[in-house]
Amino acid sequence: MSSQADPSRPRSLESVANWDLEADVVIVGYGGAGACSAIEATRAGAEVLILEAAGGGGGCTAMSGGHLYLGGGTRPQKAVGLEDTAEDMYRYLMAGDDGPDQAKSRVYADESVAHFEWLVELGVPFTDAIWEERHTLQPDDACLIWSGNEKAYPFNQVARPAARGHKVAREGEAGAELWVHLSAAVEASGARIECDTPARALVVDSDGRVVGVIASQQGRELAVCARRGVVLSSGGFIMNRDMLRNHIPSIHQRLEHVEQHGNPHDQGVGIRMGAGAGAAAIRMGEYFITVPWYPPASLTYGILVNARGQRFVNEDCYHGRVAGAAFEQPEGKVYLIADDSCFGWPEMGFELAATEGSVEELERALELPATTLQHTLSVYNQHAARGEDPLFHKHPNWLKPLDQAPFAALDCSLGRAPYIAFTLGGLRTLPSGETLTEQGSAIPGLFAAGANASGITRSAGTYCSGQSVGDATFFGRRAGRSAAASAPWR
Amino acid sequence: MSSQADPSRPRSLESVANWDLEADVVIVGYGGAGACSAIEATRAGAEVLILEAAGGGGGCTAMSGGHLYLGGGTRPQKAVGLEDTAEDMYRYLMAGDDGPDQAKSRVYADESVAHFEWLVELGVPFTDAIWEERHTLQPDDACLIWSGNEKAYPFNQVARPAARGHKVAREGEAGAELWVHLSAAVEASGARIECDTPARALVVDSDGRVVGVIASQQGRELAVCARRGVVLSSGGFIMNRDMLRNHIPSIHQRLEHVEQHGNPHDQGVGIRMGAGAGAAAIRMGEYFITVPWYPPASLTYGILVNARGQRFVNEDCYHGRVAGAAFEQPEGKVYLIADDSCFGWPEMGFELAATEGSVEELERALELPATTLQHTLSVYNQHAARGEDPLFHKHPNWLKPLDQAPFAALDCSLGRAPYIAFTLGGLRTLPSGETLTEQGSAIPGLFAAGANASGITRSAGTYCSGQSVGDATFFGRRAGRSAAASAPWR
Repeated sequence: MSSQADPSRPRSLESVANWDLEADVVIVGYGGAGACSAIEATRAGAEVLILEAAGGGGGCTAMSGGHLYLGGGTRPQKAVGLEDTAEDMYRYLMAGDDGPDQAKSRVYADESVAHFEWLVELGVPFTDAIWEERHTLQPDDACLIWSGNEKAYPFNQVARPAARGHKVAREGEAGAELWVHLSAAVEASGARIECDTPARALVVDSDGRVVGVIASQQGRELAVCARRGVVLSSGGFIMNRDMLRNHIPSIHQRLEHVEQHGNPHDQGVGIRMGAGAGAAAIRMGEYFITVPWYPPASLTYGILVNARGQRFVNEDCYHGRVAGAAFEQPEGKVYLIADDSCFGWPEMGFELAATEGSVEELERALELPATTLQHTLSVYNQHAARGEDPLFHKHPNWLKPLDQAPFAALDCSLGRAPYIAFTLGGLRTLPSGETLTEQGSAIPGLFAAGANASGITRSAGTYCSGQSVGDATFFGRRAGRSAAASAPWR
Repeated sequence: MSSQADPSRPRSLESVANWDLEADVVIVGYGGAGACSAIEATRAGAEVLILEAAGGGGGCTAMSGGHLYLGGGTRPQKAVGLEDTAEDMYRYLMAGDDGPDQAKSRVYADESVAHFEWLVELGVPFTDAIWEERHTLQPDDACLIWSGNEKAYPFNQVARPAARGHKVAREGEAGAELWVHLSAAVEASGARIECDTPARALVVDSDGRVVGVIASQQGRELAVCARRGVVLSSGGFIMNRDMLRNHIPSIHQRLEHVEQHGNPHDQGVGIRMGAGAGAAAIRMGEYFITVPWYPPASLTYGILVNARGQRFVNEDCYHGRVAGAAFEQPEGKVYLIADDSCFGWPEMGFELAATEGSVEELERALELPATTLQHTLSVYNQHAARGEDPLFHKHPNWLKPLDQAPFAALDCSLGRAPYIAFTLGGLRTLPSGETLTEQGSAIPGLFAAGANASGITRSAGTYCSGQSVGDATFFGRRAGRSAAASAPWR
């Protein structure tokens, strides 16, 4: 079998007889990262060409809720009286033992306010309101929401909490509204956009410099010269079963129970193209997963237990962190235990596994090992009565003994509840968007952003709503500037 | 910065002015995989050249305990009356949700007896004895030992248990003895061995076929032509901090508490070279970790609890599976709780965290949340008295109530107990040793084995003693045969 059987392997410059298209900067993928990259590259004076596999732009950004994770004292944060600093935001981004990127966290925190202003200048609307209740997505057009683990242990031990989810001003999902403004700016920029034109492979010269892209259009190959640089911004790989098997077997083996969240082109082609040119693909086993078990927020007073009747997480964490922990429980079996005082139906349609008049009966109905749930609740209630949770440190605001019959168990188990996931691994990059090898050398002419890169989005345990779009737009801009500033190879 | 700054990037065939050395099959790394590859390639009629970075061969195989994970009815298994079949071994290898390689597991189980016989024919000695007690390494020269999770839940639910750890006949560590025989066979084979000659990069022709290796010898570069194929067999990357940061942040961030188990050349160079040529590096976040908390086996009657006073694993699992679970507990804090009837000092030097006259006092001494350990022991004892462990399914043989004061807690925490780790991720390969891209195309001329490949060794949760050396020698042979059988490119 020839290696050419894998179309994402790089082609040599000598193999290109002539260029069909040419630009200073060629951007692979027209979503949030690609759009921001194009805007900045054109502003820097570069001629820009965007190649998009789909019939139109938008990618996962346009499909998203329209949150951007921003802070450090943005206009809406100040307007609602939230105190936030770049330092607190940085410390928050650096929390966790899942290997935060120190350099990216630093610049992302330091320039977060400026990024917000940049979006405002593009015309992206944000209100000065906050949705204070615990929710996955504010139903109204309020800008701010607590979209991560800021108030939860252990994050609240290292950084002063602040709401940093900034939603574009629109009721409900607002990704499309964000895209209206990003795409308008791209169209006004003079960048050329070729849709229905999937990129296939990079073109590399004999020194390893990336000099172009091979794309496909109406069934024929196009050789696209990138005089200054190529920006890879074509999304993650949640739709690619081969790559899931290679890197995230725990999801691959349970795909029947997990919705692959993304668009059909999330095939990892940019990651594969970049890796073929020598960039390291890192953290490829990491993913975001969630199961939106709240609102109602009152369920946070409940406790989550596994098939052993054990708690496993502080229930006041962001839904993604909770779901990440739930996904790792034996057989994915997880119940939310609520008493009469806090029970409510989740908006997303969960099933009641059981409701009983006593904890003992509930334990039996759920087929949990005898006395386990009783002991777990006994320990929990005893401490909760004093406003304490020495096991998981759920915030005192969410602590009260669960002792009012009847008791209910909502089924949050894999296969019963709506789990959705996407991938977080990608190419190793500098904050500038330059791609790096395993050992840290740059690949000349090759840049990456968004879900093609490993960014501030790291793992199920630390992800926050707004980090994907925040990271994509923020580092997309930087990748576009870097590519535009690269010396042309010819 | 030029990409040539990273020396593991592939070189083009055109960049090679002349070849300094030449062979049919060039093997990068002279450990267990490389040796077995060389033996088989020479037997197939190929001219073989081995490049080794160190001053001599052996690699991690020679440093190992000398276990090979084999089964399906080997001579020693039959001699001691153990019934095992290839089917049971296959089912065992396929257990777990960590993405076993179906094709490799199949051939490894089916040809395991033949591999044992092949080693015997090489002169590798094995007794027909078994060490029956629970131990990490049989102190005598007995061949067989229970070296995995065969008797533990959930593995014992899917396959009839059999001892499959086969140690070379020598008291204590036997890797050096194995190496004596492997290296003698290589030397007799006529393969040429160049030590102190680290490989740097692959040479690739314009079609992507691997045609040679660039190595370094006494400070100067050697161009080594591989007429038929290159076999990468140069070990894992536990000594490479860049790669650990890129792929296993949980270990990278805690290296002060984890011994990097391997030899100084475990820098992942083979993985990097292979990835540069287009092979997918997969499961790169997976690792083996252990903390040898037994013998004495009697400690298995104890329970392991985390800082929340919760159990988290069936304690009769293999030490690596236990340690993998322990490593993921909050702050790595783990105690082995024993009563007077089962306490014993581990051979490896653990500290006593506390010893008290009652469980309540022990709980307080360990600063566990009030009543947690009491509840955990209450649940455990109540079920253990009936020979049951409905939470974790520890085997009834290891169940008895822990109720005889005094009670002791051995400190198995990270930073207190001796954790050691090595990497398990590597290049994607077929059972033949052919390397594959993400999407499953073969890289012509490129083969990998041992810790350069992702093999039957998968994760902390399923690893067994003897799988590294078993996999390396078994698939090393196949890679050598495949390389020798490849059509020469010139």
